[in-house]
Amino acid sequence: MSAENIKACLVIIGNEILSGRTQDTNLKYLACLLEEWGIRLSEVRVLPDIEDAIVAALNQLRPNYDYVFTTGGLGPTHDDITAECIAKALNLDLVVHPEIVRIIENWPIDSETKAANIKMAKIPQGATLVDNPTGGSPGFQVQNVIAMAGVPVVFQAMLAGLEGKVVCGPKIRSLSFTLPVRESQISFAIREIQDRFPAVEIGSYPFFDDTSFGTSLVLRSTHSIELDLAFEAVKGLAKCSGLPHDEK
Amino acid sequence: MSAENIKACLVIIGNEILSGRTQDTNLKYLACLLEEWGIRLSEVRVLPDIEDAIVAALNQLRPNYDYVFTTGGLGPTHDDITAECIAKALNLDLVVHPEIVRIIENWPIDSETKAANIKMAKIPQGATLVDNPTGGSPGFQVQNVIAMAGVPVVFQAMLAGLEGKVVCGPKIRSLSFTLPVRESQISFAIREIQDRFPAVEIGSYPFFDDTSFGTSLVLRSTHSIELDLAFEAVKGLAKCSGLPHDEK
Repeated sequence: MSAENIKACLVIIGNEILSGRTQDTNLKYLACLLEEWGIRLSEVRVLPDIEDAIVAALNQLRPNYDYVFTTGGLGPTHDDITAECIAKALNLDLVVHPEIVRIIENWPIDSETKAANIKMAKIPQGATLVDNPTGGSPGFQVQNVIAMAGVPVVFQAMLAGLEGKVVCGPKIRSLSFTLPVRESQISFAIREIQDRFPAVEIGSYPFFDDTSFGTSLVLRSTHSIELDLAFEAVKGLAKCSGLPHDEK
Repeated sequence: MSAENIKACLVIIGNEILSGRTQDTNLKYLACLLEEWGIRLSEVRVLPDIEDAIVAALNQLRPNYDYVFTTGGLGPTHDDITAECIAKALNLDLVVHPEIVRIIENWPIDSETKAANIKMAKIPQGATLVDNPTGGSPGFQVQNVIAMAGVPVVFQAMLAGLEGKVVCGPKIRSLSFTLPVRESQISFAIREIQDRFPAVEIGSYPFFDDTSFGTSLVLRSTHSIELDLAFEAVKGLAKCSGLPHDEK
C-alpha cells in the first residue's frame, strides 16, 4: 500500500436502501471522514441481501482497493448475512469470537434473546474487532475488509474508534469558488486550467432555482502547491471577466 | 426481458458524491419510482469521473440488468464524460444529434456559450432522446442504458417523462409492521416465517434512541396472496406474544 495514494471503496448492504425505504447517509459521512484521513473513496456499491451478489462484489473489489468498508448486515436476523459473505469471499471459517460472546453475555436480556444474539458473535476466523462505543456488538476487520454496522449512529461511533488504526495518506485539500454564470460560459477556460494542472481534480457543479443560477468550482488535490496555483488561475479567470464571485 | 422480474441498476457518476460534497438523493427517488413501476432496483454503483472505471462498470452491468440507469456527467464541462463513456462501452460513435442542437440553438445565450453547449449534443449513434421538461439538454437511451441528468430536479423531471416508455413488471407491494422489541427477540420466529414464504422478502430494521427502541419489519413481494399470508403470520406473532404494535 503506497501512502501516496490510498484508495477505499464502500459496500452498502441492505434491501432497505435499494427499495427506497431508507435514505443512505453513511456514504457522505464516510467520504468526508476519509478525505480528512487522506484516503480517497473511489467507488461505492449498494447491494441487496443476497449472498452471491455480495461475495462476488467483495472478491472483485478486494484486490483493487487498500480498504473495502462494508456497512449493514451485521445484526441478529435472517437478513443479516455480511459476516458469512465476507468469510465465504475470503475462504475463511466463520467462528464464534469469545470477546463478542462476553459482550453479549453482559447485556441485560433473557437467555432466548441472548441465544439469538450469538449469531452476531460469528465472524471470519482471524478477524480483529472494531470497537462499538454504543455498547452493541462490534464490527471487525479481516485482511483489507472492514465490516461496520449500518445504523448511522453506530456506524459513526465505530468509525471514530478506527482513527489511527488505518493507514492514512496525505490530506486531500479542497478549495471552492462560486461564479454567477452558467457552466458552459466558463467550460473552455476551466478545461484549459484542468489540462495545465493534472494533479488537481476540478469539478464543475451548476446550480439554479427559479430566481438565480451559478456554477461552483471545486478544486481538490493532495499537491498543495499545485492546488494553490490552479486556484489562482481560476480566480484570475473571474477577475479578468469582471464577474462577481465567492471564494472559500 | 421477462415481465415477471424486471431488474435495473443505477450508476451514479460524479466525484462530488464520492468526496462527500454532495448528498445523493437520486437513488432513493429512483428506487421508490421503480417500485411503483414494478422494476426491482438490484444494484447501485457510485463512480468517479474516470473513463476507464465507467466503461468497465457499464460493460459489466449491461448484460445483467434489463435497464442500466445513469445519473450525472451530461453537462458541458471537462468533467462531464458520461456520453463518451457509454459510446465507448457500446462501441458506438459519438455523433451530434440535430434535435439537441435545435434545443440549444433556441436558448437565449451568446454564440461562445452555445459553442460550449454543443458538447451536450454529442450522444451515442442510434440513441433516442429522453425529454427534459426543465428546458435543458435531454437525456438519452441507447440499448438498455438510460442516461439521465444528475441534478435532482432535472433527474426527476426526466423520469416523469419516461413513464410508459420502459417495460414495467407487476407492482411490488410492501407492508410494514413495527414492534417495541429488539430484533433479536423475534429473529428466530421471523426466520421461520421467511422460510415458509420464500416469495416474500422480509426485512428487519432495528431503531433506537435514548428513550425507546423497536423493530420495523418490512414485507415486500410481487405475489400478493403470499404477501398477505406472510403478513398475517407476522401479525399473529405479535398477538401471540401480547406485544403492542403498529401496522400499515
